[in-house]
Amino acid sequence: MSHSTSTQIRLARRPVGWPVHEDFETATVEYGDPAPGEVRVRNEFVSVDPYMRGRMSDARSYVAPYELGAVISGGAVGRVVASAHEDLPVGTAVLHQHGWTDAIQADAGTFRALPEIPGVPLSVHLHMLGMTGLTAYVGLTTIAGLREGDTVFISGAAGAVGTAAGQIAKLLGAGRVIGSAGSPEKVALLTEKYGYDAAFNYKDSPVRKQLAAAAPDGVDVFFDNVGGDHLEAALAAMNDGGRLALCGAIAAYNATERPVGPSNMANMITRALTMQGFTVGAHWDKLPEFTDRMTTWFGEGKIAYDETIVDGIDNTIDAFLAMMQGANTGKMLVRVES
Amino acid sequence: MSHSTSTQIRLARRPVGWPVHEDFETATVEYGDPAPGEVRVRNEFVSVDPYMRGRMSDARSYVAPYELGAVISGGAVGRVVASAHEDLPVGTAVLHQHGWTDAIQADAGTFRALPEIPGVPLSVHLHMLGMTGLTAYVGLTTIAGLREGDTVFISGAAGAVGTAAGQIAKLLGAGRVIGSAGSPEKVALLTEKYGYDAAFNYKDSPVRKQLAAAAPDGVDVFFDNVGGDHLEAALAAMNDGGRLALCGAIAAYNATERPVGPSNMANMITRALTMQGFTVGAHWDKLPEFTDRMTTWFGEGKIAYDETIVDGIDNTIDAFLAMMQGANTGKMLVRVES
Repeated sequence: MSHSTSTQIRLARRPVGWPVHEDFETATVEYGDPAPGEVRVRNEFVSVDPYMRGRMSDARSYVAPYELGAVISGGAVGRVVASAHEDLPVGTAVLHQHGWTDAIQADAGTFRALPEIPGVPLSVHLHMLGMTGLTAYVGLTTIAGLREGDTVFISGAAGAVGTAAGQIAKLLGAGRVIGSAGSPEKVALLTEKYGYDAAFNYKDSPVRKQLAAAAPDGVDVFFDNVGGDHLEAALAAMNDGGRLALCGAIAAYNATERPVGPSNMANMITRALTMQGFTVGAHWDKLPEFTDRMTTWFGEGKIAYDETIVDGIDNTIDAFLAMMQGANTGKMLVRVES
Repeated sequence: MSHSTSTQIRLARRPVGWPVHEDFETATVEYGDPAPGEVRVRNEFVSVDPYMRGRMSDARSYVAPYELGAVISGGAVGRVVASAHEDLPVGTAVLHQHGWTDAIQADAGTFRALPEIPGVPLSVHLHMLGMTGLTAYVGLTTIAGLREGDTVFISGAAGAVGTAAGQIAKLLGAGRVIGSAGSPEKVALLTEKYGYDAAFNYKDSPVRKQLAAAAPDGVDVFFDNVGGDHLEAALAAMNDGGRLALCGAIAAYNATERPVGPSNMANMITRALTMQGFTVGAHWDKLPEFTDRMTTWFGEGKIAYDETIVDGIDNTIDAFLAMMQGANTGKMLVRVES
């Protein structure tokens, strides 16, 4: 067996507003041989996700806040490099939640072996075939009750969840699918690569106006990753009986002032709307159904994806900040060894 | 048979902000003998309800706007005084939607005969045993999915729907029921007469603070008649998986400036909340179930109610305005003949 060094990024203090480098600290950990039942994994890709910002605060939330001094946990994929458990021999591809580190040694039960799909990198298990894809699927089906022919509006559509949601909506029979994004390049990608019927740049002019133009017959399902003026615009455009799945509110995550809420909440009543917030954690029961369908769609070449890759575990914080600012197209990932 | 004169109140123009007398006109109609199939009804009580404000505007809504020049339609109860239809002989008590008038002659099919409950005035069919009670029942059951032991918060609790909702919640097994109202008298009534476990005056200090004190273990079900700061306060107090039934937004009905929405919509996501707006019109299928249960509760002496009565059809507009300003306790009614 071999000894090994691991670089880990830990939470040093709770960020106020936008996180800064000083909110984190980098630590080096030495691992000896794995104890019986343990394995050591060398990561290939580490995920940075919007929900992590919530866990950095200690506000009451759906998951416990990160502990100060502990590694930022989250999704990562890698391969076993040292093993003291027969189920996970050296070389096995695995998914885990040990987070922002280049290597981790822990109980074998904390790793899940991954099927290897020819021609598909392990990283897809951190987005389209993983939590990101499941989030999009659950939001459209369980939460929004997507029906054939529905007009669907997805905010933050060029992000990881948004690119999944647009494609899944189409595959599930949605009529018109409309997306918003924050740059002309992303807007072009939505219609050219991801099958959106219409897309607009929310920085160009008020969302309310652009959405009304893109959805002349109204919106049946709103899948929200942004909140703020996107939510208000959707409330203005919803058809009677419309459903709003609130997945993210990236507009509010780093706000230090109280965000202004939608002025048109009364539309909820007059149009009999249903709005439901959700996080994927409560819907793991849908994972087998989702994995079946998504693997089939992948095999049929029906799923496109983008990855925005930052190299080096030392750049994880910058990758996280860039993702929060919308610098990514598709899934933002840190590649541990380039 | 007999000829008769009817006084009717019609919409003269669409109100902007708070309605004023000039928005309405009073007309006198002469009725001859009923044609075959028609009956003439002398009203006893005419209903004034918050939803009517919405119909006075021509904004897109769940029901068609009132037409200019037409009688303000809505619930009323009375007795047949002239009949040319065998199913509704003279003297029959009826409910109808012909609205703001002291008498109406129309096709018998537009009236529904009412059972007479000994000791109970016809007026209860305009609130506890009618649309108001059904609204409270549907909001708590179909919309909010009330469960045994739930902590329930009801805004505008001393209004017609609120007094029904508090009692129904208790009868359906709710744990703690909390209400807000706009005067010390109403607050006292909630706990002393309507079985609320706690109540507060929303004019005393911020709703958010008072609700937190009244619901130390959080809120599972919010039944909203008010919107605005009540909705924001509820969002702050909701427990994970909480359900918000939006029934009314009286705070916004007469607003001429854009209302400020709740600043904490992101709680929808972190606490996996479900918010649903509704109007009773989509839930008439629940009427038989509701009528059965409510009639039983009435018979068992379990339902208290208040009526705020204004005498004279000529005072209907003032009654409507007073109701919108919260001058009523329980159901606001116009008594046609005092």
